[in-house]
Amino acid sequence: MALEELGEFGLIDRIVARLGDAAARDILVPPGDDAAAWASEPGAAVATIDALAEGTHWRAGTMTLYDVAWRAVASNVSDLAAMGARPAHLLVATLLGPRATLAEIDAFADGLADACRRHGVRIAGGDVVRAASTAFTIAAFGQAPLDAAGAPRLLRRDGARPGDAVAISGMPGASGAGLLLIADGRAKAPAAAALVEAHRRPLARPELGLRAAAAGLRCAIDVSDGLLQDLGHVARRSRVGIELAGAQVPLHPAAVELLGRDAAFDQALGGGEDYELVLTGPRDALRALDTPELPVTLIGRVVAEHPGEVIVWTDDGEEYHPPSAGWDQLRGPAPR
Amino acid sequence: MALEELGEFGLIDRIVARLGDAAARDILVPPGDDAAAWASEPGAAVATIDALAEGTHWRAGTMTLYDVAWRAVASNVSDLAAMGARPAHLLVATLLGPRATLAEIDAFADGLADACRRHGVRIAGGDVVRAASTAFTIAAFGQAPLDAAGAPRLLRRDGARPGDAVAISGMPGASGAGLLLIADGRAKAPAAAALVEAHRRPLARPELGLRAAAAGLRCAIDVSDGLLQDLGHVARRSRVGIELAGAQVPLHPAAVELLGRDAAFDQALGGGEDYELVLTGPRDALRALDTPELPVTLIGRVVAEHPGEVIVWTDDGEEYHPPSAGWDQLRGPAPR
Repeated sequence: MALEELGEFGLIDRIVARLGDAAARDILVPPGDDAAAWASEPGAAVATIDALAEGTHWRAGTMTLYDVAWRAVASNVSDLAAMGARPAHLLVATLLGPRATLAEIDAFADGLADACRRHGVRIAGGDVVRAASTAFTIAAFGQAPLDAAGAPRLLRRDGARPGDAVAISGMPGASGAGLLLIADGRAKAPAAAALVEAHRRPLARPELGLRAAAAGLRCAIDVSDGLLQDLGHVARRSRVGIELAGAQVPLHPAAVELLGRDAAFDQALGGGEDYELVLTGPRDALRALDTPELPVTLIGRVVAEHPGEVIVWTDDGEEYHPPSAGWDQLRGPAPR
Repeated sequence: MALEELGEFGLIDRIVARLGDAAARDILVPPGDDAAAWASEPGAAVATIDALAEGTHWRAGTMTLYDVAWRAVASNVSDLAAMGARPAHLLVATLLGPRATLAEIDAFADGLADACRRHGVRIAGGDVVRAASTAFTIAAFGQAPLDAAGAPRLLRRDGARPGDAVAISGMPGASGAGLLLIADGRAKAPAAAALVEAHRRPLARPELGLRAAAAGLRCAIDVSDGLLQDLGHVARRSRVGIELAGAQVPLHPAAVELLGRDAAFDQALGGGEDYELVLTGPRDALRALDTPELPVTLIGRVVAEHPGEVIVWTDDGEEYHPPSAGWDQLRGPAPR
């Protein structure tokens, strides 16, 4: 069926029906009115917006729109996780290019629904428009509780202090390694499955963010553009230096096996879209966040020296300069 | 300067600096972190998202990006106004096509800033990405207070009841008339100024929405796609019929002067992007909303008959069928 035949409101009804229980039908005003409304509590409202555009964030053929939707949900939930907020509601703007098909929109809706269920969030509303190229924008909302003194518990980029340790969840670089293997036509290798899954269905870490905030930690960022680049934001905003012990950065065993230790290490430092959380704070508080389900590993420390800079040390006491330091939305891969 | 030279984070800093006091610098977490955070109160959180795409909502040459930004702010604030919420914070996703220039982005930021100041809202965060074509998505957040019984006061599309009167703010069709005059090369005619202004710098009506909700009204929609089409949403969602007295629909005197009464009337019924509010409720409550600054005019009534349908009556007791009934995002102008 042509999109024109269905019309704007027919298409919206179709998407909402397809979302099933991932559509927030029981909030104060569910999808379908001028705006969505849900009950708000005293505390902090936390909100973020993220855009994904064809040609920039995916190319027709390399990613299905199911995967694009999944990533869009994960990246938004991850931004709230990095604040220590509980993510709850998403709004989705769908910009349809001239070649967008109904089958693609269905796949997008299915990806939204599955990623929402996996992350415990729901779609509260959206917008559908025609555009010269396909893109999606998601805005995500959550809430952060108040502490005993009535102040909101939030994890901020400017919360790192000299003396803090630095820790990371999971195994950074898995998504980047998966992308390399897909590009090399090696995605079918048996050991590649977990890496390809990390690239295609990344998982944000909202429960870790909540536990960290509840434990009194005050600084985190999510690894969306690459570990070094994202830690650089923390270093600049907190006016501190950060030193990483390269050997302590946890590497995915499959990435080491398939790409070699050096390439796996570079993906861990520079690969984006892992959506792991990097946290700073007292060593013991960070150690206490480690669980069998989601490892949290100490990888470095915050120092007063070289404010704004992140330095990676090798075991030999040398400074290591990876070939790529991360992703810049306007420049592409950042040079070193 | 090329955008690549400035880089993603340089560009974001430039936009935030340009926003001046339209950037929300004093909230719990201002622009620059993973997400924005502001204090939330008990009541209803109200949120909406709207996308504007080059080629669909504007064409290079017919609208400056200053005007595009203004309209994006107005349309989002209008969605919150139509719920009876107090708009407060916006998040802005900027998708930059290959031909986007720094001068255009500066103009966009200036339009955002001025429209935010005029509407009493502020930018709390955003995202900047490269895309195959230029588009902007804004998400807007507001809050609706609780009534004495602890229920949120919200204006809904499904709140119209038989026996209600129907009223509209301002003079619908002014924006559509302005667009016609621009397309005809008559924008410089002295009488055209107010209409061109209505098209280029539309004003949403959040104060009216708040007054209506506080007065106990329960149903409104904003005129974004055309009066008849938007009232059609109210009729369908409320399962009521709506009858308009054509002669009572307030027409802009300049539209009547420059286009003639018939064309001005058709613009009032089918022209979009006026961002006036249409309200239903007890006649006296609607009359009490009328002020010298913003007229509110009774134009019809809600009936139990012909549910889902909006009928326009002429003075001669004939049913009137306008040539265009509004705008569908996928089909273009809706047929009758």
